[in-house]
Amino acid sequence: MDKVPTIKDVALLAKVHAATASRALNPNTRDMVSARTANRVIEAARTLGYAPNSAARSLRTRTSSVAGVIIPDLRNPMFPPIVRGIEDGLREAGYMALLGNTDGDSERERELLAAMRGRQTDGFILATSRREDPLPAEYGGRPVPTVLINRRSDADLPSVTPDNVMGVHATVALLAGLGHERIAHLAGPQELSTGWERYRAFLDAMAAHNLTVAPSRVAFSAGFTEEAGYRAAVALLDADTTSTAIVAGNDLIALGAYLALHQRGLRCPEDVSVVGFNDMPFLDRQRPALTSVRIPQYEIGTEAARLLLERIDNPTAPAKRVVLPVDVIQRDSTARPR
Amino acid sequence: MDKVPTIKDVALLAKVHAATASRALNPNTRDMVSARTANRVIEAARTLGYAPNSAARSLRTRTSSVAGVIIPDLRNPMFPPIVRGIEDGLREAGYMALLGNTDGDSERERELLAAMRGRQTDGFILATSRREDPLPAEYGGRPVPTVLINRRSDADLPSVTPDNVMGVHATVALLAGLGHERIAHLAGPQELSTGWERYRAFLDAMAAHNLTVAPSRVAFSAGFTEEAGYRAAVALLDADTTSTAIVAGNDLIALGAYLALHQRGLRCPEDVSVVGFNDMPFLDRQRPALTSVRIPQYEIGTEAARLLLERIDNPTAPAKRVVLPVDVIQRDSTARPR
Repeated sequence: MDKVPTIKDVALLAKVHAATASRALNPNTRDMVSARTANRVIEAARTLGYAPNSAARSLRTRTSSVAGVIIPDLRNPMFPPIVRGIEDGLREAGYMALLGNTDGDSERERELLAAMRGRQTDGFILATSRREDPLPAEYGGRPVPTVLINRRSDADLPSVTPDNVMGVHATVALLAGLGHERIAHLAGPQELSTGWERYRAFLDAMAAHNLTVAPSRVAFSAGFTEEAGYRAAVALLDADTTSTAIVAGNDLIALGAYLALHQRGLRCPEDVSVVGFNDMPFLDRQRPALTSVRIPQYEIGTEAARLLLERIDNPTAPAKRVVLPVDVIQRDSTARPR
Repeated sequence: MDKVPTIKDVALLAKVHAATASRALNPNTRDMVSARTANRVIEAARTLGYAPNSAARSLRTRTSSVAGVIIPDLRNPMFPPIVRGIEDGLREAGYMALLGNTDGDSERERELLAAMRGRQTDGFILATSRREDPLPAEYGGRPVPTVLINRRSDADLPSVTPDNVMGVHATVALLAGLGHERIAHLAGPQELSTGWERYRAFLDAMAAHNLTVAPSRVAFSAGFTEEAGYRAAVALLDADTTSTAIVAGNDLIALGAYLALHQRGLRCPEDVSVVGFNDMPFLDRQRPALTSVRIPQYEIGTEAARLLLERIDNPTAPAKRVVLPVDVIQRDSTARPR
């Protein structure tokens, strides 16, 4: 075959009118034809390799069945299961995901938003989490259905977040229950929603247990990385040698703390307990295996897809804020203080 | 602003003709206007939030500046850096990636190919690696520019693969150099190019060192997973107790072997040396730290993007096969035999 098959070719092979073939191939109108006819048309389309011309349809209806998904960096182990969940959630409605990485650069995010809008993207899922990151609603004139992951905004936008507050409260409760009173926090970067929310939750949780947060027992990590966590832990240990436990802003910061403790000759958990956050893969292989907070990453993705599809169907529906529960996974890095 | 800004709005604000504004905004024609004018137009477009209507352009030119990227599962730690490399490679040419996961299901892959073609995708990068997976050229009438990752085909298609042969030869040379002669292989699934290629390379490498491959010293893992690797290792240890080293089809299979060895009371590397493949993250934290073969995943992605863009520009150019070099990273799981 030399030419691209058209709906007419499909109709000819299935021995139906072109309009019938078109109805049979569109999931929204398929019940207007008999199941037998629909199957014959679908079979004919498959035989010919017919692919509906979405560009023409897109121009007509201004929708493309494509959602733009923008994240900081796919190589961060947090994101692959989220993106996979988004794709699976979108697929059921016949949507596909256009993917873009920002490396945390707001200017790059603006470019991606514009480029994706130029491709008639039906909506956006933004997993970038700087508290000041751009929103499509702020860019240009037309509002675009948008769902935020790991971030909430003042704008009326749906969002999906893990329950950072519950996670931090549960870790503080775990440590307090073991008998710890002098608990330190290695906070994540405060310009990121996640770092900021967990830090505030730490202060609240300590207060809830009538525990004091000495200023010398909080250090801020410049990034959610092992290296930045190590540097913050060194600063923490320089300022304070009396803490018996550390709540880290995420797992990589906790692994940085492992190294800093080891260099000072402090053992975990005998001298200092450590708790991470995110429960990234292979933590059970760390020495000691790291106690952490498990986040339902895949469900964050499927939930975000669901909210986006709802928003596309009904752009003026009230914006839902979905907060997904988390679990503390207790391993070997937490013990009673000596 | 209530309406979507058009090229005319941009031209009005920049005080140029619409045709000039259009030229200034298209990277291919930008040098037809002065840099000063181009900057003014770009600034105006940014102010108005103007996004070129790609759907209209797509219909006119039959290109969308979108490439379809199909992989088995983004949650496999091999793929995020590859996909990130693809995105970065495409970005420079103004392309974006439409992403799909197949879970190794050929039928699902056919559906994705059809759905992506229906969205006027300019080309495909396929990182699915079943030796019999479908190719877009086989589906429907129109050939589509396509690049394969981790797989080569009989069809005239460009491909990017890590040097599996070199990697396996280097691991066998390492073990032979340490004095091992009875070397076993935990092969990956043979319907996957990677498993098949590494198994054949193992046979060749052993022959090159005048070492015999006893049939009882080869076991086939049903998947590239820790669980499947564990089961294959149990079968291997049931059939043969004399091997002093194991070459595993990938790192997860090697970790499965760790468990099986441990259960038999065999120590690694004192009793049996183990080598993995892929050098996935955090292997240095395994006990013992796993010797493995490092693959340039990000470069595989950028290289695939480059080949695809070449192919889109010139669909009849000869299909290049790019094989990227790999390195053995020696850690604590390999030692002299006792």
